[in-house]
Parts: sequence; C-alpha cells; structure tokens
Amino acid sequence: MTKTALVNRLSLNQITIEQWSLEEAVRGCEEAEVGRIALWRHKVEKTGLQVSRNIIRDSGLHVSSLCRGGMFPAPTAAERERRLDDNRRAVEEAAELGTDTLVLVCGPGPDRDIDMARKHVEEGIAKLVPFARSYGIKLGIEPLHPMYAADRSVISTLNQANTIAEQFLPEEVGVIVDVFHVWWDPELYQQIARASGRVLGFHVSDWVVPVPDMFKGRGMMGDGVIEINRIRNAVEAAGYHGPIEVEIINQAIWDRPGEEVLEEIKASFVKHV
Amino acid sequence: MTKTALVNRLSLNQITIEQWSLEEAVRGCEEAEVGRIALWRHKVEKTGLQVSRNIIRDSGLHVSSLCRGGMFPAPTAAERERRLDDNRRAVEEAAELGTDTLVLVCGPGPDRDIDMARKHVEEGIAKLVPFARSYGIKLGIEPLHPMYAADRSVISTLNQANTIAEQFLPEEVGVIVDVFHVWWDPELYQQIARASGRVLGFHVSDWVVPVPDMFKGRGMMGDGVIEINRIRNAVEAAGYHGPIEVEIINQAIWDRPGEEVLEEIKASFVKHV
Repeated sequence: MTKTALVNRLSLNQITIEQWSLEEAVRGCEEAEVGRIALWRHKVEKTGLQVSRNIIRDSGLHVSSLCRGGMFPAPTAAERERRLDDNRRAVEEAAELGTDTLVLVCGPGPDRDIDMARKHVEEGIAKLVPFARSYGIKLGIEPLHPMYAADRSVISTLNQANTIAEQFLPEEVGVIVDVFHVWWDPELYQQIARASGRVLGFHVSDWVVPVPDMFKGRGMMGDGVIEINRIRNAVEAAGYHGPIEVEIINQAIWDRPGEEVLEEIKASFVKHV
Repeated sequence: MTKTALVNRLSLNQITIEQWSLEEAVRGCEEAEVGRIALWRHKVEKTGLQVSRNIIRDSGLHVSSLCRGGMFPAPTAAERERRLDDNRRAVEEAAELGTDTLVLVCGPGPDRDIDMARKHVEEGIAKLVPFARSYGIKLGIEPLHPMYAADRSVISTLNQANTIAEQFLPEEVGVIVDVFHVWWDPELYQQIARASGRVLGFHVSDWVVPVPDMFKGRGMMGDGVIEINRIRNAVEAAGYHGPIEVEIINQAIWDRPGEEVLEEIKASFVKHV
C-alpha cells in the first residue's frame, strides 16, 4: 500500500484530542486533510445531536464509528433495562451521525461475580441486535485490556469477543481490534484470523514502558513495544481494509495544541502503522 | 477446613512487608505465630546468604518459596547465558535456604518481538531444568498479569504456563497461581484444572478499584473484586494443599509498621481466603 493510500485510511478518534470540541475536531481534520473521524457520545452530547449531525454533514467527513455503547452488567434487571435503553439511544445517534458502527465497551461486573457479568453482556447484546439491525448499525465488540476487567470491561480477549459475535450474522455483530488492548495476547493472530469477515474497526496507539497512567497513558505509535504493522497486516489478511482509528488516551497529549498533535499523528501513522 | 487449619497455611511473602529486613521478617512471623515465609533474593542478598540460612534454620520457619528466577529473554546469546547463570545461582540459593520451589518471573522481551521473547523463555527453562533437578528444586512458572507483558513477563496466562510446564515432569516444572495476575482470565478455572498435580504455589492479594499504582497497587484480601475463595477451592480441587502466600505489593502497606500489617493480614486471610 502506498503511503498516501495508507494515510487516507487514518481516522481521528475524537478522544485522542479530547481538548477539542466536536466542531474544533471537524475543522482540525479538514485543515489537516484527515478525511475520517470517530465520534464519542459525550462530545456529541455537549454540542447537541442535531448540531453535530449538521457539522458532520456539511464537512463531508466520514464517521468511522460512534463510541460507545455497552456497559451492560448491572445488579438489577431494572438497571440493566435502563442500560439497554441507553444503548438503543446510542444506536439512534450512530444512525443520525451517519456511521454504521457502534463500538461496545461492554462494562465491568457490579460485584465479584465476573461470570454473571459476562452473561449480562451476552444477554444485553442479544437484546440490542434486532434494534440495531433495524437501523443498519453494526455492533463492534471491543475487548479491553485485562487491566480494565474490574472497571470497564469483562470482555478482555478477542477470543471472548469472537465467541459472542459468532452467535450473530457478520452484518450484525463483529469485533474491534485495538492494538493497545490485545497486543500481549498469546492467541492474537489466531483470533484475528478467526475474526475474518467480522473485523469492524482497527484502532492504533502504543504501549510505552513504563505506562504513565492506567487509563490516560497510551503512547504515540512508534513510542512503545507493539508490533503495530504486523497486527495491521493480520487484520487486513482477515479482510479488513477500512478506516484505521488513532485512539490515544493520554493526558500529556490533551495538554498540547490539537493542531500540533494531529500533525504528529499523521507522521507517526505513516511511519509505524 | 477449620479457620486454624487455614491460617496454618498462611505464608508471609517477604515483599508484602518490604520495610522489614529478613531478620525482622523472621522475628515478626515468630511473634505473630505465622509459621511460613517466602523469601526474595534481594532481601537475602542484603542479609547475606549464610546469615539468612542460619536465621531461617534457627527459627524453624518453613520457607514456601524463593522469588525469583527468570528474566530469560535478552538480545544476545551471551546475555541470555548470563541470565541463565543467575538462575543457576537462584537454584543454589533456594536449596541453601531450605525451600524446594523457585518462582520464575519469566521476563519481558528486549524489543518488539514478543514471540521471540517467549521462545527465549522456553529455551531458558529447558536449560535450567536439569540443573534445578540436581538440587531437588522445582521451577514454578508464574504467569503475570498482561499489564506487565512489556516490562516483567511475556508469560501472561496460565494457558501459556501450563503449556511450558507440561513439557517436563511434575516434579520438575509447575505453575504458580497468583489471584492478582489471573483473576480476569476467561479460561481461569479450566486452566487451573489442567494444572492438576502441577500447582506449586498459591498467592493471594486483591484487585482494588481503582488500582492506585500499576506495580505497587495490590490490595488486602477482601478489599477488591477477586473471588479469592472460589479460586482457592479450584486450586485445592487441582490437588494443591500447600502454603498460601500473601503477596501484596503496595506502597501504603510499606509505609506502615510491619507488626500491624501482619495482624491485619491474618484477619483478612481467615475472612476472605
């Protein structure tokens, strides 16, 4: 793939430049000639759904995904139903914003019973699928690094994500491969191959040593230990040739001017992705 | 099991009260009527091997394990050979200190090639086994939480540890189950069952939310989300009825008087292990 062809796949995941509003992010992408963006619901909410939709539509930017649905496990059936309602709203928002992919961060367990929490995730997804299908929205299960198993996601491996996704049609449920979350997995390449036809997104950042913060400590591509290029090749061999989201959650990056960060991202992307 | 029978299995892993010297740790265990201790090489080195051996022998304490061998992967064959020499010294020290178990923290990769690092681990263990056998020392492969894959261990799951251990006799190589490292694993219980007859140690602490520090952030049993008791039962069903090491790496605990910490450990142990 030429460098131009590669960089054309770059999508700015909005959380990477959290300091920008949705409008600033859209303008920033236009000025940097980045044609794709991944939106986060809290940013959309701040700007307002209709205003956000209009800004996006007028920009001509492609929306690679909306983040996030999920957070299914909860101690009571009533609370789980409220979570499901919120997921239905997320599906509607995704459709409104012109993307076909809703990223699922599946949620932590409410207590010490991780098996039950995992069941709640499966039940939640099963209930959400018909609704999402009716809007043409695919659900992308994103396994999160096991260090988030207690507070963000009981789905920690691609194996788990694949096992759930395979209960549905490929146009309904797939998986998101984020190198930060899965790079350590001894089954990584076999599970990417298993996900053939179901990879709905590919996210890049890097794992730096030492990690400066468990949540806001992701690194710029090339600054860490992840074999990003090898993983990209594996994902492409599994049939994924869509947008590549740069999702770097890092306080130091949030403290810098967004324009500067975006230029650095483009340079690192061409070199290391 | 009665509470007395259970607490008799408690072994103080020395790193938990890092503020104590080896001599202080031994006296502390005696005063608290804790009959078992797990030693760390840096503490033994500080006191001196012969002096440490004498202190231990005179105390009548049982040494459940020595921590740690490992750190096999390195960029050059010469450096890997030096690491192996250090492992041989660790085996000799273990024998000298009267334990039959050397815990292996297998090491990070020296670059971005995690597969090669994993090969170096397998080769290192294979080379170490005959030497360890000649001293009557068993090698316990301890998978570390995937969040340490870049800086401490490329062996991140019990599956990996079992796969390596099974290449050797059960009296040569086994696995260490540390709840902090493995609690999130979707294959946890099947891999513990697979390790039947090969579990060489069981370590307890807890995963608190949020984790205060990636390295020095483990919690006291009962303060977090881990199903410690369920995991203990699984380990026992796999045939392990030996010492249970309390290994809590936590700066806040290191800042407190050791005697007080040890009393708290005993109380939490009876309640939550």
